Amino acid sequence: MTSLDDLPLRDNLRGRTPYGAPQAPVPVALNVNENTHGIPEAVAHDIVASVAASIIGLNRYPDREFTDLRRDFADYLGHGLTAENIWAANGSNEVLQQILLAFGGPGRTLLGFTPTYSMYPLLSSGTSTSWVAREREPDFELSGEYLARVIAEETPDIVVLCAPNNPTGTPLELDAIRAAYEAAPGIVIVDEAYAEFSDPATPSALELLPGRPRLIVSRTMSKAFAFAGARVGYLAADPVIADALRLVRLPYHLSALTQAAARAALRHSDAMLAVVDDIRGQRERISAGLSALGFKPYRSGSNFVFFGGVDDTDKLFRQLFERGILIRDIGIPGHMRVTAGTEAETSAFLDAMSALRS
Amino acid sequence: MTSLDDLPLRDNLRGRTPYGAPQAPVPVALNVNENTHGIPEAVAHDIVASVAASIIGLNRYPDREFTDLRRDFADYLGHGLTAENIWAANGSNEVLQQILLAFGGPGRTLLGFTPTYSMYPLLSSGTSTSWVAREREPDFELSGEYLARVIAEETPDIVVLCAPNNPTGTPLELDAIRAAYEAAPGIVIVDEAYAEFSDPATPSALELLPGRPRLIVSRTMSKAFAFAGARVGYLAADPVIADALRLVRLPYHLSALTQAAARAALRHSDAMLAVVDDIRGQRERISAGLSALGFKPYRSGSNFVFFGGVDDTDKLFRQLFERGILIRDIGIPGHMRVTAGTEAETSAFLDAMSALRS
Repeated sequence: MTSLDDLPLRDNLRGRTPYGAPQAPVPVALNVNENTHGIPEAVAHDIVASVAASIIGLNRYPDREFTDLRRDFADYLGHGLTAENIWAANGSNEVLQQILLAFGGPGRTLLGFTPTYSMYPLLSSGTSTSWVAREREPDFELSGEYLARVIAEETPDIVVLCAPNNPTGTPLELDAIRAAYEAAPGIVIVDEAYAEFSDPATPSALELLPGRPRLIVSRTMSKAFAFAGARVGYLAADPVIADALRLVRLPYHLSALTQAAARAALRHSDAMLAVVDDIRGQRERISAGLSALGFKPYRSGSNFVFFGGVDDTDKLFRQLFERGILIRDIGIPGHMRVTAGTEAETSAFLDAMSALRS
Repeated sequence: MTSLDDLPLRDNLRGRTPYGAPQAPVPVALNVNENTHGIPEAVAHDIVASVAASIIGLNRYPDREFTDLRRDFADYLGHGLTAENIWAANGSNEVLQQILLAFGGPGRTLLGFTPTYSMYPLLSSGTSTSWVAREREPDFELSGEYLARVIAEETPDIVVLCAPNNPTGTPLELDAIRAAYEAAPGIVIVDEAYAEFSDPATPSALELLPGRPRLIVSRTMSKAFAFAGARVGYLAADPVIADALRLVRLPYHLSALTQAAARAALRHSDAMLAVVDDIRGQRERISAGLSALGFKPYRSGSNFVFFGGVDDTDKLFRQLFERGILIRDIGIPGHMRVTAGTEAETSAFLDAMSALRS
């Protein structure tokens, strides 16, 4: 039997383990920040019709420039953006990978502020970019002063700011992003995967794009759009960013099925996003419920709550799992993360937490 | 206006141009080796039904291990393979990219034999792998002796053998692959994107897998399966190869739509491949027709014909384009490549060539 040690694997990959959030079939899966509400039936029908129409031409390569889809994304985002400002890939992970392939790589660095999205270091090692991790400030916050100081110290080729931050949910003010951009010598990515769950009237980093060609705002359809299974991530930036990514993207990387499904979903963005208010409400319920039970939830602008005050995360994970509830152990002692799902899922989670606490 | 020179692009990407086969709407598109026959209607209906069934769960991440699809690929390939031997991605380009990320990269080399698939050097530069190009033997052939000698000279980390070769169509004997594997210190990829078009009874490199853990046979559904728009490539190898690729693949890289569509198509592999015989017949018609006109077609085991004897490739490209026919100028003086399509498309091409010759 051959083992990995017998193969000429790259040295920086030796001993690593693959990304591995459990994919267990449980009644209440609140571990990977999916939108548990699902796709409205009327929208699903339109997606089926659109995908069906694309199958007739499936023997041909898809539009390599996915121009129609880029125009639809620009219309959805607003802020005066056009198709030229947009790029997309199979999930925001692939968007980030393409950015690292173009602007990172050997001899270059990606700076992030931990705890943050666990894929950043994995994408770095996959692209031979050096991952530089600096800690967030108390309560996982990030101020403009702190960002500017750390960036000036590290002079990274790329900075990634997850806003709101995964796994902590922490929102990030535009002033802090402005300060980070001023201090950064290279690319600044604002990962807005969870932006739609921010409190109403929270401004997006999209506002900062004019005049900032090194700024990239990445988004995903996986979360608010309930489209995790379709794998669609995208970004908005100066058009020259798309020119750079064309050099490293695989030709025809977005399938005709993906393009058709995403365009259909975007036609129904109002219906797809109708549950976002409700999810925000469940998030607040979770925070209040956890506080009442003596845990410490952090402020969240996303569809999940990060909380401290857990005596034994392994034990709590197991106890909840036995009750059919899956939440996330991020590996930070005393802390766990739970997705805000439907009202019933929130109730199941809070009831279980209450029963376990008593 | 910001230009690429204003951005901190990686040095090895500066001055490069993106992959750019023309995507022009013409009546007879024979330039990118698609299966021009399309998907049979009954199969299309089943694909629609399968994709429709997947949409209900699209708010959830897809099966990260795509276990059912891997089992289906193993069943299709035969040769005693199981799901553990299979890996897949969004097109064989992504399969190759993942192999380079795991086994290539900075300080490592990929050896190929030119002229060959134009994406190999692009994937190399994208992953910071050094591309080493050695010329093929006369008439674009490759013997085991030559392969063993060049590989011993270059000691590459990875060798890629395109069999049949794109753009020349040249088949590759199993003995030559055996010799390459014996000489190679590292990974040997046999890119069988066009294997289904080989003459009947031509053995596949899949036969060589047992006892050769460094051997990878890559395949695609883009060509014989008429599935270019769906973006599905895959490989067969020792299970430890999949373990390595899990370290560099993006989690959930294959969408639920892709998995559903591919599984449906594989259920109808007989119907999907029914036109392969006809395409081989058109290929032979093209070769005979070009010979009769005084051109020099090379032997082909694929769904296209590479031919020499063209006085002016730019001119021929333009003349055919004006007649609604798109073929491929690979950049090799005096040579062009044409896809074998339907009987009508072959007639249109040969008639135009005959008219232009006279």
